[in-house]
Amino acid sequence: MLAETLARVRESAPLVHCITNYVTVNDCANVLLACGASPIMADDPGEAEEITSLAAGLVLNLGTLDQRKLSAMLLAGKRANALGIPVVLDPVGAGASTMRTGAALRLLEEIRFAVIRGNMSEIRALALGSGHTRGVDAGAADRVTERSLAEALAFVKAFAARAETVAAVTGGIDLVTDGRRAFCVRSGHPMLGRITGAGCMLSALTGAFAAANRDDPLAAAAGAVCAMGLCGETAAARVQPPDGSGSFRTYLLDAVYNLTPEELERGANYELR
Amino acid sequence: MLAETLARVRESAPLVHCITNYVTVNDCANVLLACGASPIMADDPGEAEEITSLAAGLVLNLGTLDQRKLSAMLLAGKRANALGIPVVLDPVGAGASTMRTGAALRLLEEIRFAVIRGNMSEIRALALGSGHTRGVDAGAADRVTERSLAEALAFVKAFAARAETVAAVTGGIDLVTDGRRAFCVRSGHPMLGRITGAGCMLSALTGAFAAANRDDPLAAAAGAVCAMGLCGETAAARVQPPDGSGSFRTYLLDAVYNLTPEELERGANYELR
Amino acid sequence: MLAETLARVRESAPLVHCITNYVTVNDCANVLLACGASPIMADDPGEAEEITSLAAGLVLNLGTLDQRKLSAMLLAGKRANALGIPVVLDPVGAGASTMRTGAALRLLEEIRFAVIRGNMSEIRALALGSGHTRGVDAGAADRVTERSLAEALAFVKAFAARAETVAAVTGGIDLVTDGRRAFCVRSGHPMLGRITGAGCMLSALTGAFAAANRDDPLAAAAGAVCAMGLCGETAAARVQPPDGSGSFRTYLLDAVYNLTPEELERGANYELR
Repeated sequence: MLAETLARVRESAPLVHCITNYVTVNDCANVLLACGASPIMADDPGEAEEITSLAAGLVLNLGTLDQRKLSAMLLAGKRANALGIPVVLDPVGAGASTMRTGAALRLLEEIRFAVIRGNMSEIRALALGSGHTRGVDAGAADRVTERSLAEALAFVKAFAARAETVAAVTGGIDLVTDGRRAFCVRSGHPMLGRITGAGCMLSALTGAFAAANRDDPLAAAAGAVCAMGLCGETAAARVQPPDGSGSFRTYLLDAVYNLTPEELERGANYELR
Repeated sequence: MLAETLARVRESAPLVHCITNYVTVNDCANVLLACGASPIMADDPGEAEEITSLAAGLVLNLGTLDQRKLSAMLLAGKRANALGIPVVLDPVGAGASTMRTGAALRLLEEIRFAVIRGNMSEIRALALGSGHTRGVDAGAADRVTERSLAEALAFVKAFAARAETVAAVTGGIDLVTDGRRAFCVRSGHPMLGRITGAGCMLSALTGAFAAANRDDPLAAAAGAVCAMGLCGETAAARVQPPDGSGSFRTYLLDAVYNLTPEELERGANYELR
Repeated sequence: MLAETLARVRESAPLVHCITNYVTVNDCANVLLACGASPIMADDPGEAEEITSLAAGLVLNLGTLDQRKLSAMLLAGKRANALGIPVVLDPVGAGASTMRTGAALRLLEEIRFAVIRGNMSEIRALALGSGHTRGVDAGAADRVTERSLAEALAFVKAFAARAETVAAVTGGIDLVTDGRRAFCVRSGHPMLGRITGAGCMLSALTGAFAAANRDDPLAAAAGAVCAMGLCGETAAARVQPPDGSGSFRTYLLDAVYNLTPEELERGANYELR
């Protein structure tokens, strides 16, 4: 089933409009190209809607947010909703500042998201309307382990159901759920946390998968999460001294570029709950 | 002849002022350093003119455009014209939104460009004053093939003549012309389309070549186009599984760094028409 | 002693808030992660203070400056001062434009910096209140050599004493001084000048080192400068044809990732003056 989600990306080469932060935007563009999609970045309110109209998917990422970008996100998101184009939200740093949490909540209120992809601290901030995120990484207490899995899953399912979206919560065990069914994904590698942009790249990938699999956002998000985790493993296996995080970053992009639908199907490590 | 264009870049180490998008700006800075030039990025209207005055070349790139940047471009471009500093335009996404097309046309009206470097969809949007570009990549119908070469060349020549500039149109067969003479360049590799920034990097390179070869913008642009194409081939030849687009990106920069004037002369695959 | 400065970064994993340019921001985030710190980038005046409050260190980098960012820097810097969080200034391009020099001087007036990290042209612009920097690289006359060392050191010491900060001036022989004691560092490699961001990455590293070694900003800055120089050497030693600046960039990040406190202690080449 996951094979199909990637195969469709490669076949349809969806154009994905990203309004995203300037820290990892280059990585996001490259990962979209690597998976077979096509990126377009445009964040000015003066063209956001028009650009979205050309696209098959829209990704809104709150990193390095400012008011101009937020305006563009609202315009683009509404246009996407009107046209039936799937929208992915990455609430980077929600909970870390009043501005980010407020922006995330406003977007949640005004736009329907096909998928929300974040770490547990960010999702908690969205669910509770506040938070105390430590920067842009999930707090240690918010990492999903075998021990905390049942509770975390119940929380995320409830959030997804209430927000009428697919939630993809990554960090430790990744949880992808539409509120009813859930993928618990145990793919991935700690090296993904030693480069910037792994989360942003996953959200961009999710945008491509959601665009190419409009009828099934849950499978799309699960496909993207498993693809990223698996590629993290592939890249990490290639790291040999004196390689480090620089080489890992290159290998990760290589792995996405070379990943076949069959490898994704075979290699993804998940259970349905 | 092309050898000379690169040799001059390495000798004079021109400082190139780029007002460019935040997606590929790091790649542009790195490619300028790799070819022996020196980058300076500054996009605030409060300093754009002053920074341009220090530079030997100016590159205006419309990716992730906003009003502030457009103001800076107009100021910097006029100052460059007044000082005789060559200006390169990369009309990224012209045709994809009213704002981008309008900005490109306004720049074209108010500033004299030594070189305009874009894909055929973007050049068409400039030539016709409108367009329907699919994102930032050329529409498939706009790719120059052996079959469409004669017609495409006539079109680009007419555009260059009317705009009194050198047009460098890349994608498939690359066309570089001042309206009279034309280089038809068959260097390059499809992998260049699988990373972000190949076009932007080429425009940055063109800025360096134009700065170092002020007396001959046509040869300068042809040198840059051939250099990029050749380096794409060199980089692609180095890609071996499990390498992919990540490694290609690194190899491309390596290739620009190592390219010698003699290799450029020998390796460039072009005909004059 | 330098070993300890790095060991503390790895132990405390400081969160470093960077308000920095969009050219090298990705490199800065990656180098912070590579050294064991954690980056957060946020440049909007609406959240700058709040984000700084979460952080252990703050880095202000003047590349691609605009008024919005400058406002954020002033707010964040003052908050950091109030909370005792060390602040690092990288006056990129001070001396190259009136706006940059003015902004640097204003920051210097309103904020106390633990460390100011720049090239000699930039430091000269700060010290003299004006300058004629050639772009963002130090003028050739401003490169510290064995011949100019004594004079340069006296100048930088006087600047550090007057500004009540640690000055870390890099290029040729690197000078790190609090106005009394000085590290003259002879680590480093010319390849560091052939990629963009070596200076910015060093400033980000300095932010991490200063955050983890609050009691000794001089040792912190010296540790960061030696670490970067040493990693430049390690990376350059790994470059073999057909490698070039692209591979060097990857190897540099790898070197920071793999650097141990003992290697830093053993490998750093400095004298105290």
